[in-house]
Order: sequence, then C-alpha cells, then structure tokens
Amino acid sequence: MNIAKTPSPPYYAVIFTCIRTEPDEGYQRMSEYMMELAQYQEGFLGVESAREEIGITVSYWKDLKAIDNWKQHAAHQNAQEKGKNVWYESYTIRIAKVEAIREFDK
Amino acid sequence: MNIAKTPSPPYYAVIFTCIRTEPDEGYQRMSEYMMELAQYQEGFLGVESAREEIGITVSYWKDLKAIDNWKQHAAHQNAQEKGKNVWYESYTIRIAKVEAIREFDK
Repeated sequence: MNIAKTPSPPYYAVIFTCIRTEPDEGYQRMSEYMMELAQYQEGFLGVESAREEIGITVSYWKDLKAIDNWKQHAAHQNAQEKGKNVWYESYTIRIAKVEAIREFDK
Repeated sequence: MNIAKTPSPPYYAVIFTCIRTEPDEGYQRMSEYMMELAQYQEGFLGVESAREEIGITVSYWKDLKAIDNWKQHAAHQNAQEKGKNVWYESYTIRIAKVEAIREFDK
C-alpha cells in the first residue's frame, strides 16, 4: 500500500469509513479481490486504505459516472450486500470532489 | 476514534495520507495534541484517522476559510515544520468538497 499517484485535480474521492464486526468471515479475501477488481474499472485512479479502530478506504475516480459504474458492478454489489449483512457494524461513504493537492517527498 | 458525525453536505474534507519515518520522536503526543486543538477551531466538523502501512487522516471543515485558518495556526505550523523535518517520509494532502453522503448503521 502506497500513497496514490493521481492526476491533477479535479477528480473525485470516495471516502469510505467503517466499523467492522468481529468475525472475519472471508472479509480479508473479499476486500483484496475488490481492490484488485476496482483497478480494472474505467476511470479508477487509485486507492488508499488503513485500519485501526476504524477502517478508512479512500478511492479516487475520474468522475461521478465512474463511481456509479463501480457501485453497480455485479461482484461489488454482492460484496456490498455481504458487507451490510455480515462485515460492517456501521459505515459512512462520502463522495467528494478533489479541488487541490499538495505533495511532500523527502 | 469513531466515524465522524458531520452535517449535511456541502462541506470540505482534507484527506491527509502519509508514510512515516521510523522513530517516533514525540509524534504520538504531537498528533494527539493537534487532534485536540483542531476541535477548537472555528468550522471544524470532525476527524477520522487510521494507520497501517500508510496513515490516513480525514478532517472535515465547514469551508475553505476554516481549512486555511487551521493551516496557518501557529502551533499547527510548528507541527507541520517538524513533520517535514522529522516525522514524514512523504505525504499527500487533498482538499475535496463533500457533495454527498450515505450512512449505514446495523
């Protein structure tokens, strides 16, 4: 996992913040599969993810259409369903338009 | 750390993604102090943070003015300086306007 290299703004960010339920129940495998699959979607620009008390995944997309296409993707729909039924206690998804970026590299 | 409770969009998100250097050198203490201090800033709406291979902190703000005021805050300027000199190998800051939100709670 690295800091995502994205093109110049504007583009979109999907900020997904979650609280997990205890049992893994195939979560790790599905999560990796979704990350892999997302990268083949039209308009996908990158993803960043970390988990401690809460999990945060930020994915970057060319436009709202690309985000909606990914939301509707059959395998992803299936994962979303299982997420609600099994994996997540609660989550919040925020759709945000990236307007500016500042980078630092030692 | 919980999922941030924020008002209805629009508002702004500052997505801070970082790779840390090894030694802590007071990082944990400063990080907690900054989180605490941010909450007293005008226009601060909430914060979410998690760290694994990379660290992700997303803070939410009423508008760009509030983000800029926080950036200019003296104690925060001091932390930013030390961040560049000591704590961070690299980081990316993205400023994004939250346009929509979807919440799930079991």
